Amino acid sequence: MAKSRILLVGCGGIGTVAALNLEAGNRAEVTCVLRSNHAAVLQKGFAIESCDHGSVAHWRPTQVLDAVPSHPSPPFDYIVCCTKNIPDAPPSLCDLIAPAVAPGQTSIVLIQNGVNIERPFIARFPDNLVLSGVSRTDAHEITPGTIQHKQPDSLDVGAFPHPSIPLARQENVAREFVRIYSAGGKTNCRYDGHVALSRWQKLVYNACLNPICALTGLDTGTLQLDRQSMETLVRPAMREVIQVAAALGHRLPEDVIETTIASNPVEKRISPSMLVDLRKGNLIEHENLLGEVVREADAIGIQTPTLTMLYNLCCAVQLRTKQSRGLISI
Amino acid sequence: MAKSRILLVGCGGIGTVAALNLEAGNRAEVTCVLRSNHAAVLQKGFAIESCDHGSVAHWRPTQVLDAVPSHPSPPFDYIVCCTKNIPDAPPSLCDLIAPAVAPGQTSIVLIQNGVNIERPFIARFPDNLVLSGVSRTDAHEITPGTIQHKQPDSLDVGAFPHPSIPLARQENVAREFVRIYSAGGKTNCRYDGHVALSRWQKLVYNACLNPICALTGLDTGTLQLDRQSMETLVRPAMREVIQVAAALGHRLPEDVIETTIASNPVEKRISPSMLVDLRKGNLIEHENLLGEVVREADAIGIQTPTLTMLYNLCCAVQLRTKQSRGLISI
Repeated sequence: MAKSRILLVGCGGIGTVAALNLEAGNRAEVTCVLRSNHAAVLQKGFAIESCDHGSVAHWRPTQVLDAVPSHPSPPFDYIVCCTKNIPDAPPSLCDLIAPAVAPGQTSIVLIQNGVNIERPFIARFPDNLVLSGVSRTDAHEITPGTIQHKQPDSLDVGAFPHPSIPLARQENVAREFVRIYSAGGKTNCRYDGHVALSRWQKLVYNACLNPICALTGLDTGTLQLDRQSMETLVRPAMREVIQVAAALGHRLPEDVIETTIASNPVEKRISPSMLVDLRKGNLIEHENLLGEVVREADAIGIQTPTLTMLYNLCCAVQLRTKQSRGLISI
Repeated sequence: MAKSRILLVGCGGIGTVAALNLEAGNRAEVTCVLRSNHAAVLQKGFAIESCDHGSVAHWRPTQVLDAVPSHPSPPFDYIVCCTKNIPDAPPSLCDLIAPAVAPGQTSIVLIQNGVNIERPFIARFPDNLVLSGVSRTDAHEITPGTIQHKQPDSLDVGAFPHPSIPLARQENVAREFVRIYSAGGKTNCRYDGHVALSRWQKLVYNACLNPICALTGLDTGTLQLDRQSMETLVRPAMREVIQVAAALGHRLPEDVIETTIASNPVEKRISPSMLVDLRKGNLIEHENLLGEVVREADAIGIQTPTLTMLYNLCCAVQLRTKQSRGLISI
């Protein structure tokens, strides 16, 4: 069986684990596009400490590039995007991958958080399928090329509804990607027939605990122990997410608030990604995790006072980061 | 004329300038209680670079102590409090000064921000007058004992309404304090007949720009240049303060929002005190600057969604600071 040709953009923790799984099954050749860690990986490969794969030294995917290739021949079957999604800072991911997208052939896989992330891709590449990847993996790049992978890989894959591609093809391609990704046997990758529901469910964490921790500097464990924060910030925000999701037709499980809180045990003192990014002086992903929720709510006339305040504060925080990184001068 | 005996607690920037003015007129003997800078000042006095007093080297008030004295004899005429007001962290200022308060004799002067700060004092010392000092001075302690005083001293003094002390006496004592404080001629100290109005007016800055800058890390200049922050955070918060003040009978000037914004010129890039405190890892004064506004609003049934969110986030931030300073273990 011919191997699938895959371009993977964004080889941090999640991306590297994805690349490793994709090659482990011997059904894909993965070309990775690296930026900050390109020199390190070219020289000595990845060093991966993985709960699924053990200690993997000097690992290299089939190919390592420092930029997205233009009009590759033959074209890629899949472009897997594992970068942070920060639409408010150029370049856009669409622009970034455009030179490598073969119309009608390349499927785009977004292993990223947030809702409505597929919209710019479907608009820009109307003949290409866009797949959703929701990862619940805990993997981080500690130093360039060194990956710590602490919680078993878990990935839900399904097709984002596409206006002009037959449903059967959408499902087939998604299931085929799951087979390729799962072939190595060291991952829990599942087909996801309810892409939107999964994404909204994850927002109960990502639109709430994520910005609240980022704005206050508290980890999720400390936050949980503080009754005032839970009752005045966390739960009201979560209830707003559930309300917006329901109004859009996505009925989340009744116990979603309690299961989301319980899945972040106090003793783990988890620092959500936005807080980690802020501490590193990096831009945050508030537009897709929070901004889209607020905009969807506005569009259908639902009040989200808590999420709106969190969003506006996150925008101001993002402004500061852009200023301190010299991205804007204000 | 016998000099007034004054105990001054909290000799940072504002407190030291106050001590200097009080002694400069030769109508008061000031005993200062120092904590963090006690050793430095005992050894070489204060070094003050002041726009009002010039360069003052090795300055010492009449007496320097490292704790509030118990039952001083003769008792103090005034106890001037220039500490930060952080009622959510012990010891309370009431507890701190209690040993030196002579019932019916000592007047307590609070040169501090916020509303309702007099309440615990009037409750605890029912026979003692409590005076309000609203300072608009820019003075900071750079290193222990070294004070930079950049904007001319400006102090409004009046009596907080007291339930059991005759009005005439309240006004006389306040005016007498103004005379003592002003006698040196190098300050702009005025009698304030509308204590509450001045305090609520100052909250248009302190309950709004102060926490927003603290939570986002932006200075007031950058914030002003960001239309989104001004329209979604700053102005809504300011309108809520004005609304609560009005409901309590304090009608602020119609142009108070614009004059408050204009008094913080963009080019000065001012970092409000809460932001400065947070950067230093210090506790913030959110309870009297913001919490009291929210509680007053709740009590009279006024909605303050913006201020309430800011307050709840500030509480969580304060929790983090208490945790990192070992004041609580959570």
